[in-house]
Amino acid sequence: MIKVAPSILAGDFSEMGKVVRQLEEAGADWIHIDVMDGQFVPPITFGHQMVEAVRPKTDLPLDVHLMVNDPEKQIEFFVQAGADCISVHVEAANHLHKTIHSIKEAGLKAGIVLNPGTATHTIEPVIADVDFVLQMTVNPGFGGQAFIPSALENIKRIRSMIDERQLPVDIQVDGGVNSKTAIQCIQAGATILVAGSAVLGAQDYGEAIAQIRG
Amino acid sequence: MIKVAPSILAGDFSEMGKVVRQLEEAGADWIHIDVMDGQFVPPITFGHQMVEAVRPKTDLPLDVHLMVNDPEKQIEFFVQAGADCISVHVEAANHLHKTIHSIKEAGLKAGIVLNPGTATHTIEPVIADVDFVLQMTVNPGFGGQAFIPSALENIKRIRSMIDERQLPVDIQVDGGVNSKTAIQCIQAGATILVAGSAVLGAQDYGEAIAQIRG
Repeated sequence: MIKVAPSILAGDFSEMGKVVRQLEEAGADWIHIDVMDGQFVPPITFGHQMVEAVRPKTDLPLDVHLMVNDPEKQIEFFVQAGADCISVHVEAANHLHKTIHSIKEAGLKAGIVLNPGTATHTIEPVIADVDFVLQMTVNPGFGGQAFIPSALENIKRIRSMIDERQLPVDIQVDGGVNSKTAIQCIQAGATILVAGSAVLGAQDYGEAIAQIRG
Repeated sequence: MIKVAPSILAGDFSEMGKVVRQLEEAGADWIHIDVMDGQFVPPITFGHQMVEAVRPKTDLPLDVHLMVNDPEKQIEFFVQAGADCISVHVEAANHLHKTIHSIKEAGLKAGIVLNPGTATHTIEPVIADVDFVLQMTVNPGFGGQAFIPSALENIKRIRSMIDERQLPVDIQVDGGVNSKTAIQCIQAGATILVAGSAVLGAQDYGEAIAQIRG
């Protein structure tokens, strides 16, 4: 079962309630929320108050991707705001095991994220602790970037790592995902596809989501 | 002429376009935008895409208060997004003179911000370069906090500093401002009053703004 998680980063910041309602109606599985702090990545996007504000507007899981330094400091804010999933970067979390367990102990799904240039062996110590691994297929920071094909090799390595250990762990991909690159990601082993402009830039969100799901 | 600058931090993040339109109709002079990065202050609020999104919804000046580390890295984002004023913290800007001048060279109004515990002499080297000084009357990071009365002494010192030099510099205050504390701030020398929950928590935004303006 392939899930599609549209990213509201590509939505209209002046009416995010409407954006999430439209995505739910269009058949999205999760709502992906790209949190950036201007430090781990250049821009600042939004924080826990955006999650709190859109929480009553949709029944879909709110999937928070923390592109921030010291992510451990943000967990409690997002738990209280009503997030369902929180993922943290292996490059940013100095206390990775502790941070992942603080997410799970709060009753949320925990994810670990790798940038395109990060070696997959860095997640081996925690692969059995997470609910999903997010492989970035662009360098994070901005929407609308082109897919980096070499990241497909990372997805295959993560798929092997999960299958060898028989773990119930999903693989999420994020960056340059559209109906064409989605097929390649699914073939490499991805199960959750994040898409920004490919959905929110489309005339028909429902059609775009269906095409990405394949 | 006293100006009131309601802060959208106290608004509904799921419909910020509506929030700024309502504030304009209610008689606000500026729209105050509290940018936080989760590093200089604990929460992350929003970044330049929020400015870009609300820019077409109002004709009022968009007044961006950067509560971030390394504010110089954010200036260009906010200039491009359509901000009219940008203020930076004296505690956060390592290259204060350079940062202020980069704001002014882009054609915007530049402000310098002091926390309640920051000595006013720290702004003497740049007081003649800025358009306004923002004296925080709470410790920044969260809305809805109580006014810190000792900050009134800082406002008086800044007023003396400006008047002695005969500078065309405004004094803005932010934090716990309501119809009662506003009078104290104006008497101490403030000319621009930021208000969050005192406006956006009121039944009638127009009445709340008028009461703060005094």
